[in-house]
Amino acid sequence: MLNKDHPRYKSLLYREKIVKAHDAGILADSGMIAHGRGETFDYLIGEKTTPNAKNTIDIAACYFLVAENPVISVNGNTTALVADEIAELSKLLNIPIEINLYYRTDERVLNISRVYEDLGITNLLGTNDDEFIDTPDLNGPRSPVSIDGINKADLIFIPLEDGDRAEKLTINNNKNTICVDLNPLSRTAQTSTVSIVDNIVRVIPELIDSIKKHQNMSKDELNDKIKSFSNEENLSNSINDIIKRFK
Amino acid sequence: MLNKDHPRYKSLLYREKIVKAHDAGILADSGMIAHGRGETFDYLIGEKTTPNAKNTIDIAACYFLVAENPVISVNGNTTALVADEIAELSKLLNIPIEINLYYRTDERVLNISRVYEDLGITNLLGTNDDEFIDTPDLNGPRSPVSIDGINKADLIFIPLEDGDRAEKLTINNNKNTICVDLNPLSRTAQTSTVSIVDNIVRVIPELIDSIKKHQNMSKDELNDKIKSFSNEENLSNSINDIIKRFK
Repeated sequence: MLNKDHPRYKSLLYREKIVKAHDAGILADSGMIAHGRGETFDYLIGEKTTPNAKNTIDIAACYFLVAENPVISVNGNTTALVADEIAELSKLLNIPIEINLYYRTDERVLNISRVYEDLGITNLLGTNDDEFIDTPDLNGPRSPVSIDGINKADLIFIPLEDGDRAEKLTINNNKNTICVDLNPLSRTAQTSTVSIVDNIVRVIPELIDSIKKHQNMSKDELNDKIKSFSNEENLSNSINDIIKRFK
Repeated sequence: MLNKDHPRYKSLLYREKIVKAHDAGILADSGMIAHGRGETFDYLIGEKTTPNAKNTIDIAACYFLVAENPVISVNGNTTALVADEIAELSKLLNIPIEINLYYRTDERVLNISRVYEDLGITNLLGTNDDEFIDTPDLNGPRSPVSIDGINKADLIFIPLEDGDRAEKLTINNNKNTICVDLNPLSRTAQTSTVSIVDNIVRVIPELIDSIKKHQNMSKDELNDKIKSFSNEENLSNSINDIIKRFK
């Protein structure tokens, strides 16, 4: 049992979730290592949502509220850490969840789909190889996307996504993308439309709150907020927040 | 099979070693996550040995050459990544290797000891619970050390060590410690006598070369080099090298 008084209690709790998901066949080996990479960046930003990240989450909320066909893309790490909150987000907006894995195996897809089915999600895409189509200009294992999901979407939420895919979806396929990535220097962060530099475990609850707060605004107001945002400035702020930590 | 032309070939190769060691019962789950944390820091220092780290490795070589009873402490991650080189270092200096694990189980000790035995190491400590004694002022799973190893040693090489242990060995037990830690802000790096801020896969071969280069120097010359070194300055340089990367 973890001791709640431990100064790193939360970090150890998330680590426990990751290990459990690995044991349950939800997470690939590489997902455990990826979690460690994230731990370092979270440590560098002080393990809290910065004011800059909070603002970026608000912009993401606006994007969700003006989009016509948003979709949430999930992988093993996202599922391990925040499946409950992802399900809540999907229900709040009435939008689909697409299972889209780097190391796709039938077993992992099945294990992940069970998690969301148990949470009452019926609009679950990416569970069947037949519903896939290749993303233009994207080769390799990350190319296939669901015809009714990412392929059709105008806005794709890609937490914890790899850089090649983020770049091709955003730049070559002209999709709006919102990533969650603790590394402001990563290709994913550098090429997404909106890059939330924060830990996904804090981001999703904050995003749900922000959507509720913004959902009565007019499209014009939401679009004005979106226009006022610069992702370049956001990333530059995020980098400065890390530099401060070293000083 | 990994493609040697991949820009991150080496990083992927080490990751493969880590996954294999996990499968072989050498590495605990937490060791996989710890490897990921290291990957981020290595990425931040540019995945190369900086001139400052090179100088620190030379100082470590001098410490090894003036010490009376040095010992090498190894864990799962060190074994997964550089068992061959650790064995070479042990033979070059004719000093023992002590297996000292955070998550100690008989099975992991056995699996790790086999690795070193297969590499021809006979002076292997920490394989038998009977040879342990508690470190003064250190509680918990990291307290036990080998009576003939760390307990007796005047110099302990502690690559990839946890902070509590590094602090107690160095400060409360007056041992000279040399750590390898990619995080210059960690308690391990902050409290060790000499903190090599670099990836262990580059450090051990470089350290072996440096020992060979320094081994004909007199004790006076070696001690002069040691006196000229400031670990505080070393850590400050290491931090600045990371800040440069963000700028």
